[in-house]
Amino acid sequence: MYIVGLMSGTSLDGIDAALVRVNDSGLKTEIEMIEFITYPFPKAVEEEIVQSLSVDTSNVQLICSLNFKLGKLFSEATKEVCKKAGLPLEHLDLIGSHGQTIYHQPLREKNLVPSTLQIGEPAVIAYDTNTPVISNFRTMDMAAGGQGAPLVPYTEYVLYRSETKGRLLQNIGGIGNVTVLPKQATLEDMYAFDTGPGNMIIDEVCRQLFHRKYDEGGKMAKQGQMNEELLAYCLSHPYIMSQPPKSTGRELFGKQYVETLLRKFNTLPGEDILATVTMFTAKSIVDNYRAFILPKTDIEEVIIGGGGSYNNTLIEMIRSLLGDSITVLTQEELGYSSEAKEAVAFALLANETFHGKPSNVPCATGAKKDVILGNITFPPLTGY
Amino acid sequence: MYIVGLMSGTSLDGIDAALVRVNDSGLKTEIEMIEFITYPFPKAVEEEIVQSLSVDTSNVQLICSLNFKLGKLFSEATKEVCKKAGLPLEHLDLIGSHGQTIYHQPLREKNLVPSTLQIGEPAVIAYDTNTPVISNFRTMDMAAGGQGAPLVPYTEYVLYRSETKGRLLQNIGGIGNVTVLPKQATLEDMYAFDTGPGNMIIDEVCRQLFHRKYDEGGKMAKQGQMNEELLAYCLSHPYIMSQPPKSTGRELFGKQYVETLLRKFNTLPGEDILATVTMFTAKSIVDNYRAFILPKTDIEEVIIGGGGSYNNTLIEMIRSLLGDSITVLTQEELGYSSEAKEAVAFALLANETFHGKPSNVPCATGAKKDVILGNITFPPLTGY
Repeated sequence: MYIVGLMSGTSLDGIDAALVRVNDSGLKTEIEMIEFITYPFPKAVEEEIVQSLSVDTSNVQLICSLNFKLGKLFSEATKEVCKKAGLPLEHLDLIGSHGQTIYHQPLREKNLVPSTLQIGEPAVIAYDTNTPVISNFRTMDMAAGGQGAPLVPYTEYVLYRSETKGRLLQNIGGIGNVTVLPKQATLEDMYAFDTGPGNMIIDEVCRQLFHRKYDEGGKMAKQGQMNEELLAYCLSHPYIMSQPPKSTGRELFGKQYVETLLRKFNTLPGEDILATVTMFTAKSIVDNYRAFILPKTDIEEVIIGGGGSYNNTLIEMIRSLLGDSITVLTQEELGYSSEAKEAVAFALLANETFHGKPSNVPCATGAKKDVILGNITFPPLTGY
Repeated sequence: MYIVGLMSGTSLDGIDAALVRVNDSGLKTEIEMIEFITYPFPKAVEEEIVQSLSVDTSNVQLICSLNFKLGKLFSEATKEVCKKAGLPLEHLDLIGSHGQTIYHQPLREKNLVPSTLQIGEPAVIAYDTNTPVISNFRTMDMAAGGQGAPLVPYTEYVLYRSETKGRLLQNIGGIGNVTVLPKQATLEDMYAFDTGPGNMIIDEVCRQLFHRKYDEGGKMAKQGQMNEELLAYCLSHPYIMSQPPKSTGRELFGKQYVETLLRKFNTLPGEDILATVTMFTAKSIVDNYRAFILPKTDIEEVIIGGGGSYNNTLIEMIRSLLGDSITVLTQEELGYSSEAKEAVAFALLANETFHGKPSNVPCATGAKKDVILGNITFPPLTGY
């Protein structure tokens, strides 16, 4: 069947819409990505989203109206990706819409209960596209005592679990995160943790020393020399060797961390600093594998995704640190688009729900049970 | 099948929960009400609802958390009504939850689009009760260009349409509203309009002259004398004889209307005023029938519901104004509870959606199409 997955992230870049063809469900899922677009928000809507995210500027009237406005934009994104692919809308079977998260309260706090709120009215999408919509994926996991996130592990399981190879899925976004998929894994065998920094130290050094947003392709780092003293300093951070499960956020390896580091090593050439923090990022990833994964699990492949997979210097460092026995691939090399990853994930989660199957991963979210994610909204002409 | 209908109205009295047994769907629906309760809100939650209703005091954090809190309370109400009826929760087949409306924007206005927002997270209800939940009934009608209200006409059609009798369903709440169900009607033959005041003038006179909330059983009005001059004054209100479709709100026959009336007729005894405004209410209803309904439609029965159906003086006046050829009954006399009406309606609407059938009434809401209302959220163990 043809499914569109829709995702609108916290970066407010627009609506990611992935059109995929899917056969079967669960471990038998076959998937092919047909088309992907990012459908931009009109400026006024983007401003309303920003307003709706904050306790100070949000209100019930804004949220009520914005829910319907976003529904309209999600249906436009759906039409657009189908049009680009040359697929008549009548041939579209299902839409999986994550919606726009406007609040997420993972834990109880004073008078607030654990809860999450995604908007982008599914009735509007289903009506405008005449297609069933599955939406509100996170709420059921939270109802089951989970944190409603991460939801990608299930689709990673479906896409990458192998009968013959142990695999690590390394995401390098701001933070580095690894998902472990042993050979012949069941969902319960799978686990994930944050390895430490992803691009965030590299990007911050680029901003502060080179006034650039990031090190394109890792070219600047390639020109620098490794500094052992700086590398040892970085590696002494207690997060790196602390035992999983563990998770980190922007606060541990952010702006302040980099400012302290630059003050301490202010005599080093910028390229050397960049080369060294890139090596630190590579080593933090590989050291975590060596300490916590490889001793107990056979791993044949590491598949790297996220923005960091475009940093060739970083990828080469990881490759050489791991040695010949483990193959390092990027998502792009496998034909998966990093950009489209989350939109594709929600197409696959919709597929599972449509088949009446649970798709949260309790050991990843903390939920007490397997649950069927999301609810179904029917278009006018279904079911007559 | 056993269905619980859940409704939480704008009066914030608590959660109305009706347990019904339903067979079949559409015009073949057979329904029996088994139990009804009103499950009160904890004071703190009631305060949060009040806060969430206002543009000034609402915010995204509050709404996110309250959505989950209300979900919990809706599931408690469900368990409570089943327990009271002695029905094990495992025997419950379906829940239809209207939720709590926290905003309704019927028309476009500046940067706001037509939209509606009900909260009471269905995933929480489905998880806690292990029962499928149908919720968010109003959004699809609005997506189809309707106002998302009223949704009761469909259930009135299902419950009261007759092969042999033309019927009027007169609701007497604050406002009077009539639904016309000709003999052998199709959904398209059905129409409804506001007849004018319901209890609101009577209640306001009680408050201002007798410091009571309402005229219990119509006892005070029964002791008064009709004043022809006051009656003529009331009947001259242009709303009464204006052509349907028409709808009125609290502003036309509210506090201000009563204050003007009392100033103008300040020499009359209170009971006389009460008797006369009660007659005015009765006549506004019957005059509308005579002018706009009876000339074109054969009517055998008038069925009266709402708080006004408990005002015996008002009912007797309507009965005598209509004469012998039309039978006047109250919902209570027919075995339907006025209190439970809306909760029962959402159980029936859930039943239709569960059967894949549309249940809005486009001529009542203004929608462009018949649509299937609400979305389905599955409990953990369905569909394995």
